[in-house]
Amino acid sequence: MLKTLFLKDKILYDGSQIHSHWAYRNFNLIGDSIVAFLGPCDVKREEMVDLEDLTKGEIIRAKEMLHFICEHFGVEIREIILLQRILVICAEEALRGRGCEVERKGDDLFIDERKLSVSIATKTPISGKIHLGINIDPEGAPVPAIGLEELGIEPIGFGEEVMSRYKEELEDINFAMCKVRWVP
Amino acid sequence: MLKTLFLKDKILYDGSQIHSHWAYRNFNLIGDSIVAFLGPCDVKREEMVDLEDLTKGEIIRAKEMLHFICEHFGVEIREIILLQRILVICAEEALRGRGCEVERKGDDLFIDERKLSVSIATKTPISGKIHLGINIDPEGAPVPAIGLEELGIEPIGFGEEVMSRYKEELEDINFAMCKVRWVP
Amino acid sequence: MLKTLFLKDKILYDGSQIHSHWAYRNFNLIGDSIVAFLGPCDVKREEMVDLEDLTKGEIIRAKEMLHFICEHFGVEIREIILLQRILVICAEEALRGRGCEVERKGDDLFIDERKLSVSIATKTPISGKIHLGINIDPEGAPVPAIGLEELGIEPIGFGEEVMSRYKEELEDINFAMCKVRWVP
Amino acid sequence: MLKTLFLKDKILYDGSQIHSHWAYRNFNLIGDSIVAFLGPCDVKREEMVDLEDLTKGEIIRAKEMLHFICEHFGVEIREIILLQRILVICAEEALRGRGCEVERKGDDLFIDERKLSVSIATKTPISGKIHLGINIDPEGAPVPAIGLEELGIEPIGFGEEVMSRYKEELEDINFAMCKVRWVP
Amino acid sequence: MLKTLFLKDKILYDGSQIHSHWAYRNFNLIGDSIVAFLGPCDVKREEMVDLEDLTKGEIIRAKEMLHFICEHFGVEIREIILLQRILVICAEEALRGRGCEVERKGDDLFIDERKLSVSIATKTPISGKIHLGINIDPEGAPVPAIGLEELGIEPIGFGEEVMSRYKEELEDINFAMCKVRWVP
Amino acid sequence: MLKTLFLKDKILYDGSQIHSHWAYRNFNLIGDSIVAFLGPCDVKREEMVDLEDLTKGEIIRAKEMLHFICEHFGVEIREIILLQRILVICAEEALRGRGCEVERKGDDLFIDERKLSVSIATKTPISGKIHLGINIDPEGAPVPAIGLEELGIEPIGFGEEVMSRYKEELEDINFAMCKVRWVP
Repeated sequence: MLKTLFLKDKILYDGSQIHSHWAYRNFNLIGDSIVAFLGPCDVKREEMVDLEDLTKGEIIRAKEMLHFICEHFGVEIREIILLQRILVICAEEALRGRGCEVERKGDDLFIDERKLSVSIATKTPISGKIHLGINIDPEGAPVPAIGLEELGIEPIGFGEEVMSRYKEELEDINFAMCKVRWVP
Repeated sequence: MLKTLFLKDKILYDGSQIHSHWAYRNFNLIGDSIVAFLGPCDVKREEMVDLEDLTKGEIIRAKEMLHFICEHFGVEIREIILLQRILVICAEEALRGRGCEVERKGDDLFIDERKLSVSIATKTPISGKIHLGINIDPEGAPVPAIGLEELGIEPIGFGEEVMSRYKEELEDINFAMCKVRWVP
Repeated sequence: MLKTLFLKDKILYDGSQIHSHWAYRNFNLIGDSIVAFLGPCDVKREEMVDLEDLTKGEIIRAKEMLHFICEHFGVEIREIILLQRILVICAEEALRGRGCEVERKGDDLFIDERKLSVSIATKTPISGKIHLGINIDPEGAPVPAIGLEELGIEPIGFGEEVMSRYKEELEDINFAMCKVRWVP
Repeated sequence: MLKTLFLKDKILYDGSQIHSHWAYRNFNLIGDSIVAFLGPCDVKREEMVDLEDLTKGEIIRAKEMLHFICEHFGVEIREIILLQRILVICAEEALRGRGCEVERKGDDLFIDERKLSVSIATKTPISGKIHLGINIDPEGAPVPAIGLEELGIEPIGFGEEVMSRYKEELEDINFAMCKVRWVP
Repeated sequence: MLKTLFLKDKILYDGSQIHSHWAYRNFNLIGDSIVAFLGPCDVKREEMVDLEDLTKGEIIRAKEMLHFICEHFGVEIREIILLQRILVICAEEALRGRGCEVERKGDDLFIDERKLSVSIATKTPISGKIHLGINIDPEGAPVPAIGLEELGIEPIGFGEEVMSRYKEELEDINFAMCKVRWVP
Repeated sequence: MLKTLFLKDKILYDGSQIHSHWAYRNFNLIGDSIVAFLGPCDVKREEMVDLEDLTKGEIIRAKEMLHFICEHFGVEIREIILLQRILVICAEEALRGRGCEVERKGDDLFIDERKLSVSIATKTPISGKIHLGINIDPEGAPVPAIGLEELGIEPIGFGEEVMSRYKEELEDINFAMCKVRWVP
């Protein structure tokens, strides 16, 4: 069962949170988890995971973001990317429920062609990890961007809803796995 | 690479299409595929895959539906259910693009609390399979339901769009798998 | 999380309980589960799973047994056999706690060279399954055997303890998986 | 087939032996293996694998231990932890055969509430690894502990027996995998 | 370790030998095995595994063949097809060693554009299976064919060599798996 | 689908090319790929992958080689070694087509007992990798060796053929996976 936690303190997302066991080492969360927190985003070059960004010399930065870090143990790369899609869709649906016309392209969310989020999913030798960052104040972003502040969305309640949608979605998937018979 | 095919002829979906190699045996499609077709839906009791439906004695029936059958080889139950979610979301997004206010609950789509779709995902010993059926004319459905006809959506163009969105989504997922470095 | 259930009614174990989804179809238990029940044992030839027994024409029979049926979804043959060993050891330890000098050989339990149990683990295309039967009254068994009755052990409390030990063991294993870092 | 080796020389177990290919690099053992040796135990902080211990600042130390190091190639974390349980049970059963009233809690062995062993299982990117250390002289241990010396058990013969029980157990598991038919 | 067996009696290969546990049920061979035998080939339509052949209404027949049946437990479809390629290459190399100019196309062997062999690999829910049949007397084959008789090759010694090459190849692969360190 | 690329520039193969994502980081090749290039071979001790070579203090060196680097994502060690065998056999068959009497022993090619090639396959945490180097000028090799120059084989056309054979072989394997029904 997925553990959820919203951190009280702000943290700078610098990319090191994507390593395995970050939630256990820091918050004593054992097992599959999603942790949300607020804080700026400034990914160190040596922590960049997306080789496309690295090659192009892109910058992953924003003044303030709502961050989600997921860890799923014993999960391979393909599954963690599918789970990332599900998480992004949970955020999209929570935004829609607040009246935002949001568009998803792969793992990115846009409003009026302005970028709302960054996301990456990868694997460690022991788990799969996801980072999803949703702009609160996009200042510093290298492309036209928008944030929750401008949209009038309060990040904490919103973050709680995204985590609870994701948890429900995973429970539903586990249920679906166990209720179907196989076919020849 | 996913093969896509829209059948010219109508077919009754009776549940037998969920068996392995249906697309190969009938249309010579080798490998991962999505096949769309129009036709009524009336699932024989012995072909029911959802044991919940079977236990409750539910009926899976509609006068006319737009059906999608996917097969992915070498895929386990968890992954095929994640892929089913992605397919349902592709349909949802294609509906939204046509101005419909659609709501997703797990693998079901609703408009104004009326059911628009049925779906199941399961595994064969050699592949994962998905059925997604979207009502055109929901007559015969056991719950309040709605169909593409009433929504004024032409099913063939819509079906082509859903297949092409699903194919793109899969290519994007494959790309994402190969562009990230692992982390410690 | 493992679901546990002790059935109130007696059931004849004839081998059909080893099929997938038995617990779901009959007792609405979704997901990984262990079900205990009392009843005779008489495995039909066509339901024999152990090809060694089948080849040798062996009989799996007892007048009254305490049965356990486990199902674990998405588990391959090697893992279900390891889990079977764990379940047999849980029974062994519960017996020891009641003062019995029991000896385990693979998946069989013996007291004073008399056979106390039968067990098999196998896979369905969607899950792994275990049957462990512990004699209450071994009458009809094809080898020298002993039962809980002769040992003065009340089967229901004993069965509950075995299930709860097994559940704890699995939780401990899940915990162990998530608390270790990987090494190079 | 598992290779077994009892080293003639004493070695300090400092945690580095848990890395992949230790048996191959040092003793030319190719493939799955269990290596036993005698020596002190003093795990360096940077080699600690159990993040729980690391967080709590625990010390893994004893003056003299009987150590076992197992490596199983192509094995994921869940399976290596199940195998660790089997190895600990082999040690427990060898102790019982020598008349010790030993109690197992997860992967730890106790006699009269005093700790007899330490153990960890984890994965490398290419294999699963197990360390099991059984106190000979527990001096230096951070909790009430007991050792083989006090129990009057000669460690070399005992170590040979544990390895041979483990090897037999694995052969029995491999045999069990191949003798059962699948069920629907 | 692969078990090898050359049957003394002739058997008609009718396709039923491709089912799981054939070697165990009939010859008491437990675990991974390769069994060779001589006999005619006439695959019943309902035992055809290659859906391409089935669709095209092809006939798999020869008056006399040298047959090999392999079973590898816990192996998925992709791996069993790779192993099939290795087995076919072992046959090719044994033929070359006897001076035959043989050409391989996928899993088929040809000499002077005449077909020498048939082969199929598939999976059961518990194992992977391979059939390789090499014509001795190709009479009845539906295409221009050649056999060991015409080539002056004695089938028993040849069959023993193919089995022993395959066994060595597998041991070499297992060795290769365990002697390489992983890389970042 | 496998991407193929023959580099125009010469590169020293020093072992670093075996790391994950080398083809993506350097040539923007996303996904499964085979890259060929010409250049000397001198593997640094710290990049040696074969622990057997490392232990024996062997040298992997030649003045000029035709190198192939393959990467397959989501592939475990056993499969990458099977794919390595297939690649070596593609090279063998391309040589035979040019009239060379070549002999394969495991993953090595020999002509007249002189070594023609070196090869290694291993895994990264995210992919499987293969290096195959075929001598052009074997000067510096630590054993009797031969090269394409002496054989009168032009390396670029030969390299293109090996890559195209390998690609075809993989497509054939993927096709074979999807055209067979499972058996009970």
